[in-house]
Amino acid sequence: MPDIKLIQCQDALVAGPSKTITSKTEKQWNVRVSPSVNRSRNPIRETLASITANTPSSSKAPINLGLGDPTYYPLHSPPPAAIAAVEKAVLDGKSNGYLNGVGSSEARQAVVDYHMRWDQVQYSIDDVVLTHGVGQGLDLIFSVMIPPASVERSNILLPRPGFAQYTALLANLDAEVRYYDCLEENDWEVDVDMLNSLCDEETRAILINNPSNPCGSNYSREALQGILEIAEKHKIPIIADEIYGHMTWSSPFVPLASLSTSVPIITLSGLSKRFLVPGWRFGWICLHDPLGVASSLKKGIQCWGNRFMGPNSLIQAALPTILATEPEWYDQVLSKIEVLAKIVHKGVSDAPGLSATFPSGAMYSFVKIEEGAFPALQDDVAFATALYNEQAVFVLPGMCFGMPGYFRVVLGTPADVMLDVIERLQEFCQKHGDL
Amino acid sequence: MPDIKLIQCQDALVAGPSKTITSKTEKQWNVRVSPSVNRSRNPIRETLASITANTPSSSKAPINLGLGDPTYYPLHSPPPAAIAAVEKAVLDGKSNGYLNGVGSSEARQAVVDYHMRWDQVQYSIDDVVLTHGVGQGLDLIFSVMIPPASVERSNILLPRPGFAQYTALLANLDAEVRYYDCLEENDWEVDVDMLNSLCDEETRAILINNPSNPCGSNYSREALQGILEIAEKHKIPIIADEIYGHMTWSSPFVPLASLSTSVPIITLSGLSKRFLVPGWRFGWICLHDPLGVASSLKKGIQCWGNRFMGPNSLIQAALPTILATEPEWYDQVLSKIEVLAKIVHKGVSDAPGLSATFPSGAMYSFVKIEEGAFPALQDDVAFATALYNEQAVFVLPGMCFGMPGYFRVVLGTPADVMLDVIERLQEFCQKHGDL
Repeated sequence: MPDIKLIQCQDALVAGPSKTITSKTEKQWNVRVSPSVNRSRNPIRETLASITANTPSSSKAPINLGLGDPTYYPLHSPPPAAIAAVEKAVLDGKSNGYLNGVGSSEARQAVVDYHMRWDQVQYSIDDVVLTHGVGQGLDLIFSVMIPPASVERSNILLPRPGFAQYTALLANLDAEVRYYDCLEENDWEVDVDMLNSLCDEETRAILINNPSNPCGSNYSREALQGILEIAEKHKIPIIADEIYGHMTWSSPFVPLASLSTSVPIITLSGLSKRFLVPGWRFGWICLHDPLGVASSLKKGIQCWGNRFMGPNSLIQAALPTILATEPEWYDQVLSKIEVLAKIVHKGVSDAPGLSATFPSGAMYSFVKIEEGAFPALQDDVAFATALYNEQAVFVLPGMCFGMPGYFRVVLGTPADVMLDVIERLQEFCQKHGDL
Repeated sequence: MPDIKLIQCQDALVAGPSKTITSKTEKQWNVRVSPSVNRSRNPIRETLASITANTPSSSKAPINLGLGDPTYYPLHSPPPAAIAAVEKAVLDGKSNGYLNGVGSSEARQAVVDYHMRWDQVQYSIDDVVLTHGVGQGLDLIFSVMIPPASVERSNILLPRPGFAQYTALLANLDAEVRYYDCLEENDWEVDVDMLNSLCDEETRAILINNPSNPCGSNYSREALQGILEIAEKHKIPIIADEIYGHMTWSSPFVPLASLSTSVPIITLSGLSKRFLVPGWRFGWICLHDPLGVASSLKKGIQCWGNRFMGPNSLIQAALPTILATEPEWYDQVLSKIEVLAKIVHKGVSDAPGLSATFPSGAMYSFVKIEEGAFPALQDDVAFATALYNEQAVFVLPGMCFGMPGYFRVVLGTPADVMLDVIERLQEFCQKHGDL
């Protein structure tokens, strides 16, 4: 513990030249790899390794709040009808064959219907490409949108704090990565002035992640409109990572595509989070292009989506049933997350040296470590390391999301486990606080 | 019909600049994609479209021998224990979560055990990365091995005739693609002299596909040793696409890694063909590096394999059971394919103007159209188009595999359907032959 199931970038990073062996012939082995391989670093792997290098000294039962995996404890069971539909596909033997590379027509139509029902956005099946989870969807859209530096300079705008996989996937592409801030004092909404100042002629895309990992925020309609205005002014398409779409409780989720009347929006979503089945690796890309200005992008996504085949055929067969899940089931899940949000928020507010905005979406609370509050713990990594060692509670430090001085708590345990976490956290803060 | 489920590269290829729309602000929309998108052409898509542009004039029932999909008719049911194991994983609710990015330890151990049992090659789980089918595995290994041209020039050697996806996946990378011939007069074995002459300092990999798509060949131990000698001499690693491994009947399959005592072999395999479940998208990469000269490659594969998560967790959970399938089940499948091989070989030999080597592996017969035998049909595409129109039989012309003058027959139908195909083919050849 923790079971390190996160994206692990082994240390190819530090791989020197290969071992050289002399053989009978003169030539020697010198097996090389593309240098871009070595750029695909993921800070989470290294941080995890450093935090968990030693067994906790605490005898308490370990609690893993590091993984954004709703099945880890598990929070709730997937929709029963969804499971039955996959079982049927397994047993009927009719869904084992190749499908269209971008996904079967039936599965893509199910995605169209789902977004019409929940987002009031009308897509056609040609706007939809199924992917092996949002991770491969991001890889696809980045590959399509970012040109080689030898052709043209480009940049892309990412949120800070933000999901580390964005940066890791972009590492082998040639875009300059620019980070715009999300402001805690404003419920983690985007700093639109900063976003505006970062846009230029070379900006190929703005990536928006709402609801946000790690912030647990849910942007308001007005805030989203402000982002759209900037994109419209600079004529930059938006990649909307909405894998946590509709996972909100304080206020309704507003899909970005539903607001755009001009800006092309590439929405990424999937089954992982809302349907509690991240291991199934099932996602999709939808292109909303109200003015028809992104036909090259549409064709590019289709083309790239066909380089290798889309996700598992059994899940594709079950998709219409899965996506027809009734609202009551989602409400059950959200009410559990909301309870956890309240426990964490109250617990953190009562803990000396910590504070957090009330989480309103996704399944995270991003907790601030007040400056100077813990004199012996010099940063968030030291905080998380000591918390793991002394209390056997594992959280990801903010530096994994580009934001030192914070840590992320996953709202995915049973309530009693989270109450235990809070107790341990408070004990920890009492002990280390500058009282 | 035919249900075009193949890799489809939509015509992003011919996408001009995006539509330009004037808006209130001065700037105009100009959404661009990476130029590499437009290089990912797949000749199969265009050929399919041209052949199937019109409905067949024949009233006969359509027969699709175009897709290398053993479930299309279907040939045989997947192993019952495999289906039961997937069903169990669906129902027990324990296999919905994230796994290690390169695959769970248990699933990778199952791959290790499988290759020990069948290939007598000893891997460790760190040599194994699970992929979303061999297609994504190829994309992974190409991305790891091929540097950007701005860093270094490189080339890669592919078989001719060969699987079109190799070229399509390489289209957005910077390696020069060189084709070595497989020689029909030598049971489609590799022309080793030509292979040798194509190797140079810039060659990053030799790709070997055995048993071969489209040739239906199964290389002898001696032939494989000849290939290894060339790789050893030039110190070039080999990518062994063995997705049809052990799908042979005339003689045993020899895994390339089992013969190599020095050359690093990257073997790609999976469930699609041998286990008759191509839609599940489940493959893997194994690195055999007897001298330990390819550590950078090993780390690179692991690193790239972690950029996004590996294949479906339900199938990973079932993998130990799936790969423990007993030999008797495979024998049942192979005996059916062998019957089809005999039907096609005899039928083609009896048809005027056609000839073919007896197929000994995979699930294909690659049939030669004798030069000048059909004066009104100028090439293999014209032959396939007329065969489709007049006899409602769909086959892929050789040009889809870089080898005009041939067509590929998929050995995947019930025997009576194949007998019907032969009857139609003979009638077609009688009609068009230069008698």
